[in-house]
Amino acid sequence: MREAYLDNSATTRCFPEVAGLMHRISLEEYGNPSSMHHRGVEAEKIIREAAGTLAGILKVPEKTLLFTSCGTESDNIAIIGGALASQRKGKHLITTAIEHPAVLESMRFLEKIGFSVTYLPVDRYGTVSPQDVEDAMRPDTILVSVMHTNNEIGSVQPIAEIGERIKGKNRSALFHVDAVQGFGKAQILPRKMHVDLLSASAHKIHGPKGVGLLYCGEKVRLQNLIFGGGQQGGMRSGTENVPGIAGMAEAAKALYENLDEDREKLFAMREYLAGAVQDIPGIYVNGQPGREGAPHILSLTVPGVRAEVLLHALEEKGVYVSSGSACSTNRPHISDTLTAIGMKREDLDSTIRLSFSVMNTMEDAQQAAYALHELVPFLRQFTRH
Amino acid sequence: MREAYLDNSATTRCFPEVAGLMHRISLEEYGNPSSMHHRGVEAEKIIREAAGTLAGILKVPEKTLLFTSCGTESDNIAIIGGALASQRKGKHLITTAIEHPAVLESMRFLEKIGFSVTYLPVDRYGTVSPQDVEDAMRPDTILVSVMHTNNEIGSVQPIAEIGERIKGKNRSALFHVDAVQGFGKAQILPRKMHVDLLSASAHKIHGPKGVGLLYCGEKVRLQNLIFGGGQQGGMRSGTENVPGIAGMAEAAKALYENLDEDREKLFAMREYLAGAVQDIPGIYVNGQPGREGAPHILSLTVPGVRAEVLLHALEEKGVYVSSGSACSTNRPHISDTLTAIGMKREDLDSTIRLSFSVMNTMEDAQQAAYALHELVPFLRQFTRH
Repeated sequence: MREAYLDNSATTRCFPEVAGLMHRISLEEYGNPSSMHHRGVEAEKIIREAAGTLAGILKVPEKTLLFTSCGTESDNIAIIGGALASQRKGKHLITTAIEHPAVLESMRFLEKIGFSVTYLPVDRYGTVSPQDVEDAMRPDTILVSVMHTNNEIGSVQPIAEIGERIKGKNRSALFHVDAVQGFGKAQILPRKMHVDLLSASAHKIHGPKGVGLLYCGEKVRLQNLIFGGGQQGGMRSGTENVPGIAGMAEAAKALYENLDEDREKLFAMREYLAGAVQDIPGIYVNGQPGREGAPHILSLTVPGVRAEVLLHALEEKGVYVSSGSACSTNRPHISDTLTAIGMKREDLDSTIRLSFSVMNTMEDAQQAAYALHELVPFLRQFTRH
Repeated sequence: MREAYLDNSATTRCFPEVAGLMHRISLEEYGNPSSMHHRGVEAEKIIREAAGTLAGILKVPEKTLLFTSCGTESDNIAIIGGALASQRKGKHLITTAIEHPAVLESMRFLEKIGFSVTYLPVDRYGTVSPQDVEDAMRPDTILVSVMHTNNEIGSVQPIAEIGERIKGKNRSALFHVDAVQGFGKAQILPRKMHVDLLSASAHKIHGPKGVGLLYCGEKVRLQNLIFGGGQQGGMRSGTENVPGIAGMAEAAKALYENLDEDREKLFAMREYLAGAVQDIPGIYVNGQPGREGAPHILSLTVPGVRAEVLLHALEEKGVYVSSGSACSTNRPHISDTLTAIGMKREDLDSTIRLSFSVMNTMEDAQQAAYALHELVPFLRQFTRH
C-alpha cells in the first residue's frame, strides 16, 4: 500500500545525503574532538564547519552555538540554565499557555524551586499578543519564553515584535524562543528579533535524532546543567556527537537553500488538503487563517469522531497522522494548546494533526483527502449521540 | 602512511555493521516512538529490542535501562539525580580521587548546593580499598560512586566487594558505577555486584557518539534532570535517538559474543607493547600488574620527554595516542589520577595512554613499539636537565 507520512512534526525521515554523510563520518572520521592528534583535529573541524553553516543560516557568530542532544535539552538549558544564572536579578518568568512540554515542564520545575511564572493566554488562532507580553513584564522578570511555531496547530508568533517589547521594558531580561517547529520552515534571525536564546532540533528537519541546537547570545550567562570534561566551553560536557552535528548542518543547509520554494510547496499541499476536506460536514481547521501560520501543519477538528479512532483508520489507508501533539509520550492527555485556543470541550478529543515536509508530494495530500472523505462519514455512524 | 589508532579509550571507530544498521534505520524506520501509528510502534519496537539485548548482557530487567545522550549525562543523572531524590535520608556521598570529570564535577556541583563528599585515595596501582569505602560510610551516606575501569591507567576496582561492603553497612545507600571504560571489556553484572546505578557509553564500544546507557535498579528513585514530554517513564524527556540506541545494542552484542577471545587479544597486544618498550631507559607502566587491570589501556611514563611532544611525534609516525586522558577537553591540566597514584611531580607531564580495541591488530602494537624506540632517545636530546 502507498504510504503518506503526514506526521513530520513528530519526526522526519533523514535526507539520504544526511544519512550518507553521517555513515561516512562514523566510519572514516571517528576521532574525539578533544583528542590532540590528527583524528581529533579532524573531528573538531567537522564540528566547526557545521557550526559555521548553522551560524550562517541564523546570521550569528559561530561561537554562540551550542550542540545538545535534542530540542528538549536545548529548552531546558535555556530556561533552567538561564533562570539559575540570572536569579540574583529576579525570580519571575513569562511564557505562554501553548508551549511545548519541554518549556512548560521546565517552568514547572522552576516554580517548585521558588521562581514564579506568568502563563499568557492566546487568542482563538493561537496567537500571543505582544502587548500582553509587555504588560506582564515586571522589574524582577528575568526570562521570557515564547515558541516560534506551535507544534499542534502551527500558529506562528510575532517574535520580532515580542522581542522589541521585552527589550523596551528591560534590556537585561532574556528572550528565549523554542524554534523546534519553526527552524527549517521560516527565516529566523535571532539578532534581528531581539532573541537571546533559541532552540532547534535536527530530527524535525530531516536530520538525525539525538541532536539539538541552542543559540546563546554572546552576553548571555547560563548555568550549565551537565557537568564533566568541560566540552563546548564548559556549557555542555560530554563527547560531541560529531556525525550527528554534521548531519544537522547538512539538513539545515539543504532546507535553507530552497526555503522560499519549499514553503510554497508546503503551503500548496496544506491549502489543497484544507480545501479538499471543507465539504465534510462540521470539519474545521485550527490556527491562523491564510498564510499567517506555519506552512507545514494542518490541525483539523472532526466533530463526532474520536481522534485516536480516526488516526488508526487513516493508518489502515496508509496515511500517518497524529492526534494532538506526538512530541510527548502517547499517554492520552488533554491538549494545553487546544484548550488555550478555547476549543469546545467535546471537540478536544476529535482533533488530528497532519504535518508535511518537503519529502511529501501532492499525491500524499490527495491520499489523505480521499481517506478522510471515505472514513469520516463511516466512523460517524459509530458515534454515540 | 599506515595508521595505528591507539586512542580507543577516547573514542572508537564505529563497527561497519553498526554504522550500516543506523543508516538503514535513519532512512527506513524513522518514526517517533511516541507516535501512535505503525511508524511509531516500529520505532518503539527497535528501542525495546535494543533494551532487551543490553538487558540480556547485564542480566537485568529491560525496564531498568534508561537511554541518555552520553556517559557524562548518565553519570550526572545517577549522581545528581540520585542525591537529589535521597537528600531527606542524608547529604553525604563517597567517591574516589580518580573518577572521570563527569563524576567529579557532579560531586563538586552537589558540594556547592550543600552536600558533602568524601574523596577516597587509591594505592599506587590506582586501586580503591573496599575497607576504606566501608570506613567512610556514615549514617547519612546516601550514594557511593566508584568507577569500574579508570580511563587513564586502566585500573579495575573490586566492584563486587565494594558493593558488598556498602550494602553491609547501609542497604539503602545507592551504589553507582561509572562503567564507561569497563563496559564491553569485562563481564559486568550490576545485580551480582550490588550495583544500583551503572553508566555506559556507546562510542567507547564501536557504537555511535551521542548515546549513553544508565542502568537504574527497580527500587532506585531518581530526580530527573531533563523535563519535557515524559519519554522513558518521565526519567529522560526528549525524542529517543532510535538509530543510535539500536547501534549501541548492536555494538555491545558483537563485543559480548566474543568477550573472552577479545580480552585475550587485547591483553596480548598490551603485553606485547609493554614488553617491547621495557628496554627504553627509565620508561615504566602505570596501573595494576599482570592481568588485574583493563585489557585495553596501557599507561606509559617516559621520564624526560613531554607527553604532548611525544604524542605529536608519534602522530608523525601514524600512531595515535593520548596524553593523560582525552575524555576531557584538550586544555593542559594536571591529571587527578596520576597525582592520586603518587606519581613524581616531574613525571606527571611525561605520561601517555595507548588504548586498544578489537579493531587493532598486533601490527599496530608493533608500529607503536617501533616508533617509541626510535623517538624517545631522539626527543630526550632536547630535554632540559
